[in-house]
Amino acid sequence: MTTSKWIWIWICRLALSILLVSCLVAAETPSGYHREICQYRKGKPMQPTSEYRNRLLAIREQMLIRATVEGPQIFGYILPSTDEHLNQEVAARDQRLHYLSGYSGNRAFAAITQKGAAIWLDNRFARQADGELDCDWEIFLTDGNVSIADWLGSQLHMKKRVGVDPQLVPHHLWLTWERELAAKFLTLVRVNSNLVDMIWDPDRPEPPKHHVIEVQHTEFAGEKWEDKVRELRGRLNHLGCDAMVVTSLTEIAYLLNIRGTDIPYTPVVKSFVIVSHVNVSFYVDEAKMTTNIDMHLRTDCFHENCVKIRKYHEIWSDIRTNLQIWKRVLVPAPCVQEPGASEAIYTAVPPNVLVEHISPIIFMRAQKNSYEQEGMRKAHVRDGAAICEAMCNLETRFFTEQWTEEKIKYEVELMRLSQSNSKGLSLRTVVAYGEHSALPYYISSNVTNIEVSDQSLLVIESGGQYLEGTTDVSRTYIFGEPTRDMKRAYTAVLAGILHISNLIFPASVKPSGVDSVVRAKVWHEMTDYPQETGHGIGAYGSVEEPPISVSYGQNSTYHFKQGYFFSSESGFYKRDDFGVRIKNVLEVLDSGRTTTSGEHFLAFQAVTLVPYEPKLIDGSMLSSDEKRMLNKYNAKIRKEVGDELKKLGNMKAFYWMMNKTRHIREYLPEDEYRAAMGGGCHAHSHLPLFALGLMILAIFIHPMWQL
Amino acid sequence: MTTSKWIWIWICRLALSILLVSCLVAAETPSGYHREICQYRKGKPMQPTSEYRNRLLAIREQMLIRATVEGPQIFGYILPSTDEHLNQEVAARDQRLHYLSGYSGNRAFAAITQKGAAIWLDNRFARQADGELDCDWEIFLTDGNVSIADWLGSQLHMKKRVGVDPQLVPHHLWLTWERELAAKFLTLVRVNSNLVDMIWDPDRPEPPKHHVIEVQHTEFAGEKWEDKVRELRGRLNHLGCDAMVVTSLTEIAYLLNIRGTDIPYTPVVKSFVIVSHVNVSFYVDEAKMTTNIDMHLRTDCFHENCVKIRKYHEIWSDIRTNLQIWKRVLVPAPCVQEPGASEAIYTAVPPNVLVEHISPIIFMRAQKNSYEQEGMRKAHVRDGAAICEAMCNLETRFFTEQWTEEKIKYEVELMRLSQSNSKGLSLRTVVAYGEHSALPYYISSNVTNIEVSDQSLLVIESGGQYLEGTTDVSRTYIFGEPTRDMKRAYTAVLAGILHISNLIFPASVKPSGVDSVVRAKVWHEMTDYPQETGHGIGAYGSVEEPPISVSYGQNSTYHFKQGYFFSSESGFYKRDDFGVRIKNVLEVLDSGRTTTSGEHFLAFQAVTLVPYEPKLIDGSMLSSDEKRMLNKYNAKIRKEVGDELKKLGNMKAFYWMMNKTRHIREYLPEDEYRAAMGGGCHAHSHLPLFALGLMILAIFIHPMWQL
Repeated sequence: MTTSKWIWIWICRLALSILLVSCLVAAETPSGYHREICQYRKGKPMQPTSEYRNRLLAIREQMLIRATVEGPQIFGYILPSTDEHLNQEVAARDQRLHYLSGYSGNRAFAAITQKGAAIWLDNRFARQADGELDCDWEIFLTDGNVSIADWLGSQLHMKKRVGVDPQLVPHHLWLTWERELAAKFLTLVRVNSNLVDMIWDPDRPEPPKHHVIEVQHTEFAGEKWEDKVRELRGRLNHLGCDAMVVTSLTEIAYLLNIRGTDIPYTPVVKSFVIVSHVNVSFYVDEAKMTTNIDMHLRTDCFHENCVKIRKYHEIWSDIRTNLQIWKRVLVPAPCVQEPGASEAIYTAVPPNVLVEHISPIIFMRAQKNSYEQEGMRKAHVRDGAAICEAMCNLETRFFTEQWTEEKIKYEVELMRLSQSNSKGLSLRTVVAYGEHSALPYYISSNVTNIEVSDQSLLVIESGGQYLEGTTDVSRTYIFGEPTRDMKRAYTAVLAGILHISNLIFPASVKPSGVDSVVRAKVWHEMTDYPQETGHGIGAYGSVEEPPISVSYGQNSTYHFKQGYFFSSESGFYKRDDFGVRIKNVLEVLDSGRTTTSGEHFLAFQAVTLVPYEPKLIDGSMLSSDEKRMLNKYNAKIRKEVGDELKKLGNMKAFYWMMNKTRHIREYLPEDEYRAAMGGGCHAHSHLPLFALGLMILAIFIHPMWQL
Repeated sequence: MTTSKWIWIWICRLALSILLVSCLVAAETPSGYHREICQYRKGKPMQPTSEYRNRLLAIREQMLIRATVEGPQIFGYILPSTDEHLNQEVAARDQRLHYLSGYSGNRAFAAITQKGAAIWLDNRFARQADGELDCDWEIFLTDGNVSIADWLGSQLHMKKRVGVDPQLVPHHLWLTWERELAAKFLTLVRVNSNLVDMIWDPDRPEPPKHHVIEVQHTEFAGEKWEDKVRELRGRLNHLGCDAMVVTSLTEIAYLLNIRGTDIPYTPVVKSFVIVSHVNVSFYVDEAKMTTNIDMHLRTDCFHENCVKIRKYHEIWSDIRTNLQIWKRVLVPAPCVQEPGASEAIYTAVPPNVLVEHISPIIFMRAQKNSYEQEGMRKAHVRDGAAICEAMCNLETRFFTEQWTEEKIKYEVELMRLSQSNSKGLSLRTVVAYGEHSALPYYISSNVTNIEVSDQSLLVIESGGQYLEGTTDVSRTYIFGEPTRDMKRAYTAVLAGILHISNLIFPASVKPSGVDSVVRAKVWHEMTDYPQETGHGIGAYGSVEEPPISVSYGQNSTYHFKQGYFFSSESGFYKRDDFGVRIKNVLEVLDSGRTTTSGEHFLAFQAVTLVPYEPKLIDGSMLSSDEKRMLNKYNAKIRKEVGDELKKLGNMKAFYWMMNKTRHIREYLPEDEYRAAMGGGCHAHSHLPLFALGLMILAIFIHPMWQL
């Protein structure tokens, strides 16, 4: 073999190795959501400096400072969008991720290293994030194939430390991260003082001083807080626990019959509660207390039915102190939508004392008492009236004004907020027109706002908080004439909602087991919707309340019980064209009948009272049973919402409602059926009649010929 | 206080204590099913001596003899009704429980002590058992509140031993018993030689000599056994196993493409198989082997694709010998209806070698290949023709002869067995008339036989084995005119079957999640049926095959896959009056379409082709969609079963079938609707027309007045 051949072979080998290594490196660098906007800036040495870049630099500096203050330096930092109570919608003061990155959505996590920054979020927020984030940020999808650990693994060398504020992370998620990072030879460490708080001090919003706590009176709550605490103590006793740390704000609001305005859409007070057998301690900003609330909570006495007011941050020292008395402390475990206690709370209680268990308050609260049931129904009547007023107003002015999604959103919110006992919205209002309605998770915003015309479908999803209860409703409308496809889609969705609203079933049927009743007709059109069909709803509380979750992907553990309220939604999404969404709140009734094995038959009943769009209903697709259910529902709206609208004196809205809820024909005449089937057979069906006519004519003519 | 007062108080106290003690004692003695027949014999010193009592005494003697032969004496003995392969229907030679007690049903366990005897069985067999069993026997329900351990605990003193034949008990059930008995301070011990076999020797039925093994040819099986074994070895390799002990007879029949007649209703050969990477050993009674089967199984060579024939009982020594080579051996775990390996097999393999895992054969078999699919469809066409012939025959002769349940059963079985390629029945035929049809688990027998008239509903549940496949069908008939209630019930059941037969759904929907689609309309009538809605079915195999189970009470782990076949049934039971049951076999198809997340949409399709009863259908309760499904199904029967009946030359049955499957009107005219609703509104609906007429008349008359 000649030397030149040897050289050639070696060059080839080298080239191959380089190719292989570069391929491996390329495969190792995870790539996320494609950011068109950042493409052309790539490789350019200088990018415009923004306040967000400065904040990123400041955070990186803080990560280095950790080296001197709290032990060794950290090389990566994870920042969730949640607050200390693991809420998804948080107060302005707690929007740390927004402050750091500019991203205004929720359900996100950021990870920062000295050389990179990335954010994980739901697909529905990707476009919004792409618009809001600097090109310093990479975007990944939460359900994508690159996890935080993958990304940090590609950014950091082995054995480096990654810091997180343990107050902002649920314990079970902490464990997942810890395991995943360990697989990349990285260590997750607790950084107790939040790094964003360190750099945010001068311009951080103050806790609003006027946000005082309100009492939820017994006429609405149906039960005194003392009785609820007694019931809770009974359950703790049963579990052999001396005390429980209540971390969920909605559970605190329910337990103490208080409401607040500390976070958007959910009427809660940012606080902790510790309930022991001799004590109730309420950890809250004292500025929010009033004489009224002092009297309600009986802060002036010292027995087990008096509440001890403590500063918000004193919970940490109190847990430490009390651990000398408590043998077993209940710390909330995750339960369906509820993430459980934060890592900080979890680690504050030593393992030998800690009892991880689903909060008993979840089950006390889910089964609404008769006052709450009545309140929920009342709130929904008023909410139905609000939607009728808004939609009537919109329809009247539709062809004389120009409308956009945001303008319609404003009108709907206005009408809802002007109802009596209204206490704000219960969720971000979604107004989605045309191709936006075809996006299951579309969130309306100024950035994506489009004009609304009469050509396509308009989906409105909204909900309100009332002193009596919480509402959550979706409806789909059209202002022009629908196509055949739109009617088919709408009727398939409506049929599912009618079926579940009238379902009767043995109590042992699991929530996941009723999902197919809602989806069957949508599936039959070869579509499915990604959302869960339903989840529990609170009474002047959260729109998403455990333990109910109706979703075929889950093995549900909890069953429906009489007095539960939950939302039930169905949708149809035709990509880039149109979408349909209908959502009602249902209540669970006991039918009073039992199966032969003694099991109770439960029944659902719609509490939401908002008209459907008759123009979009294809009567030939519904059975007479289904049409009867629809007529019964419409009659209930005419009565209850009708009374309310008359009381409000809005006769225009009243007639609008009467028109939308008019009785529809329960039978299906031949011509309507044949028209729906395509019309081709129509003439054909009259052929025998025609032939008969000819024959009769022939019989008449026949004798005439003989004449 | 006087002495007499003292005495009185003491007497009262004593009486109270006696009462209390007697109450406690009464509470401790478990009482089972009330046996009216045995009531009057109580307390009488002598009861008539029967052969069963002698056998009971003989067994008790055997229990004492254990003391000298196999270690210490046993004080309790448990006897299941199953055989060594844990089948429920067993060969005559294995009906040990029947021999001992006289009870001829299945799914039972007996427990015997020196002073008592008791049997545990399903509720459906309770009446039959009460008739068949001596008064020496107590009867308990399997799902009642007295377990075997409770009863033995009340019969025996602490620390006594309870014996069981480990070959007849699934391992997981053994563990349950062991735990429950331990809680009563009793010990469960293995008694390897079955005590009934000891006393049965002279008159025990011999294994029938003419039961030879048949080859299931590739034209039906679709795959050579060598390929199946190769696939199994691949899966064992994947699980890191050196070998697998195949204990389920249906799995052996599938794996080796063989069939037999060793047990009733299921075409299997009583045998064991051990598959290792170098060997296939078939443990079977050599008398069943023929030259044909020797050639099929290639018993003459010695490489890995040849089968080594061994004596049935040599499996035990072979396992011991091979354990010197094997590092990991797969022993079948329970899977839905499949109980897994027996305690004897389980304990034959040492724990460090044993891998408890669901048999991979279950999943290979469940997904039928194209030959098996085609075969299943063909078998169902022939089965449909058989039912049409039987029912036509029955309807023609119905009013001229006297009919009983047993006579109808005979006719139905006769017609089925006379079809080509018929290989017997696949389940005990159920013919249930009137109040019997209202019993969900009624099993027809000579004892309960009643006359069938034209007043009430007749439920026929039956199935056949064909070379090509297995069928399982239920239909409900009436020979007179049905009541409104009967039509409502029948149509509610039918609607559920139509819904599931036409269901389209994403592949990740769990079997338990589609149950509500079938039951919703039945639930709406405030009834439910206790059976599961569906389970897998074999191709010339068992009518109950894992892993599919459609039942809302279960959290299913396995999903439907293209090529699965399963039965789907729904029922309506009005106690002491009538019952409706409809069951079809469905196949799972891939629709070829996917959801937006890339998941496949699967679809069901009915394979069973037996007409429904048009007299029992209330057209006003079905939507036009549902009626279209029904018409489509009927058209398919007319074509496929029609061709078969013409081929058979049975034109009488052909016309009967054509009449039962005639097209029904898909629209719902006003008069039909109003008649179904009760008719009262009919006149009312014409009121506006009447008023219009009056007005026109008035207009005409008005000018006349002016004249």
